[in-house]
Amino acid sequence: MTRYQRPAELYAGLRLHQNEHTGGCSPKVREALAGLTREQIARYPPYAAAVDACAAHVGVAADGLLLVNGLDEGILAMAIAALRTRGDGVVPDAIIPRPAFEVFDVAVSAVGASVVPVMPAPDFSFPLDGVLAAITARTRAVVITNPNNPTGVSTPLSAIRAVARSVPPGAIVFVDEAYIDFGGESFVPELRQFPNVIVGRTFSKAYGLAGLRVGLLLAQPDTLAPLRAAVPVYSVNVAAAVAVVAALDDRDYRAAYIRQVAESKALLYEACARWRLHHWPSDGNFVLVRTGARTRAVLDGVRARGMYVKDRSDEPGCDGCIRITTGVVEHTQRFIAAMEEILCGAQ
Amino acid sequence: MTRYQRPAELYAGLRLHQNEHTGGCSPKVREALAGLTREQIARYPPYAAAVDACAAHVGVAADGLLLVNGLDEGILAMAIAALRTRGDGVVPDAIIPRPAFEVFDVAVSAVGASVVPVMPAPDFSFPLDGVLAAITARTRAVVITNPNNPTGVSTPLSAIRAVARSVPPGAIVFVDEAYIDFGGESFVPELRQFPNVIVGRTFSKAYGLAGLRVGLLLAQPDTLAPLRAAVPVYSVNVAAAVAVVAALDDRDYRAAYIRQVAESKALLYEACARWRLHHWPSDGNFVLVRTGARTRAVLDGVRARGMYVKDRSDEPGCDGCIRITTGVVEHTQRFIAAMEEILCGAQ
Repeated sequence: MTRYQRPAELYAGLRLHQNEHTGGCSPKVREALAGLTREQIARYPPYAAAVDACAAHVGVAADGLLLVNGLDEGILAMAIAALRTRGDGVVPDAIIPRPAFEVFDVAVSAVGASVVPVMPAPDFSFPLDGVLAAITARTRAVVITNPNNPTGVSTPLSAIRAVARSVPPGAIVFVDEAYIDFGGESFVPELRQFPNVIVGRTFSKAYGLAGLRVGLLLAQPDTLAPLRAAVPVYSVNVAAAVAVVAALDDRDYRAAYIRQVAESKALLYEACARWRLHHWPSDGNFVLVRTGARTRAVLDGVRARGMYVKDRSDEPGCDGCIRITTGVVEHTQRFIAAMEEILCGAQ
Repeated sequence: MTRYQRPAELYAGLRLHQNEHTGGCSPKVREALAGLTREQIARYPPYAAAVDACAAHVGVAADGLLLVNGLDEGILAMAIAALRTRGDGVVPDAIIPRPAFEVFDVAVSAVGASVVPVMPAPDFSFPLDGVLAAITARTRAVVITNPNNPTGVSTPLSAIRAVARSVPPGAIVFVDEAYIDFGGESFVPELRQFPNVIVGRTFSKAYGLAGLRVGLLLAQPDTLAPLRAAVPVYSVNVAAAVAVVAALDDRDYRAAYIRQVAESKALLYEACARWRLHHWPSDGNFVLVRTGARTRAVLDGVRARGMYVKDRSDEPGCDGCIRITTGVVEHTQRFIAAMEEILCGAQ
């Protein structure tokens, strides 16, 4: 069974290892939480305001949207709905191109289904031929993370369409758009044409609400129905429900962060070129960098300087690679300064 | 497929229909939420403090406890772990004595398993013989809600032991102790002797945290392991994680509510005797009352007076019954006064 190793609880330093908004959430979110009454806290939460705000933001009808307790819950609901073994005893397959967010493997394993990995190309472009070749009658789901985590590489919509047209009847294509705020092209406008596609979104990244756990599933109402049945009715808590409305309301705060992410990535690309470290241009709020033989020295050195970054060496195609969250410019500058010291010292 | 009909979003009146703490949470919880920083809100939450506080409170080791996003999530995790169909194609059974909390049926249905109901006795005493007779090789779970919701009747520990000794190897007994703060006897001290039993708890009732979604699963570490794998690692949000510590810290607030619940129940029993309405003595923070032919008039009359109570007529054994939350004494008095008017008017 695949288990997600919860990262150690590292909160003493600068967290550049989980793609959070290291600048914190909007001040309006904090105000919304402080404004919760004792009675609101004691009641099962109402969702109408949050659903309406999200539907308006994404541009879908309310019945084409399901609020979830972080996208992790949405991924588990997808696994329960699409990947459980039925009375025929056939164990379903989920096709997951590598590298991938580890929560997918955990959810597939939790419901007893099988992961069919598809190996990446060196440039991490979407392995369309490999995915199409992996589809069989047992395929009940294909996972596409767009932009990909940890590579930051986007998937062309044409590839998603090709996969959606090739899966067996009843199978679903799950497009994880956790990082779509930072780059890449959303599949949401095509959901009406592709009723076998479900798009996942999160407020953990661009909106700085990772601590509050809010995600969205978007699809045609009939497609969402079995997932809706697999999500507890009160899974999004009242703090999250008021926070998401406040966060959506503060467009400037989100826009400012997205600008900083672009600037941070440009700074890091430039530094990587200087250091002669290979990296992949990213559509996310993070960059994957091949530190190669110096990976251990980099991880230790960064850590010694009060920062955390993510070692991705165990992922296919990512040997000797670390992933760095590139958000608040000042934080990126601190990372770059630390690297200058580490790389000079290690040479 | 069984779907839970989310209750209509009724927040304009006095909510005596969902067994919430209608007095609100402890002021310390509100302070804890207001004290969350923007950075805490933007980070994936740490759980060490909440886990330690809960383990100390319940009197178990931290590895014998799993924090869940409301007990609903714990019930779903139990269903995923124990009730999913495996490669042998056998669809598992879950034995659920009636009447029962509807979320159990929803979770069992969501993973494709079958519910085996056991009908109640007129006094709603635990139907031990019926449960034992229903156990077969396909039984993978037995659900015991203690005290029961909606009847308020407790189950003797001897009956739980008898069931735990009679289920097939690998099957589990799930004891839902959502209302144990108000009465009945907990099975927690016996978990070491019964590794096939899992106890569920919630902070939604006695602690007034329904809006924040915090529950606990308690069992031997090996028993919990498959459920742990079926719960997203960050499912409890940061507001809930700080709230539960604050709520546990305010023992006086909880004690005062428990005293009010006892007083409210005594008042309602007395009123029912006066009205000649049958009711069942309850170990919960609610009372089931048989309003019989006057049920519709009572529901409408209570609603017209700005209160909500729960019609339970559709549950086996509960024909013509309503369930009233009996918490804050003043709220119970308002309900009793309304009933006096309604019953006089309806006669």
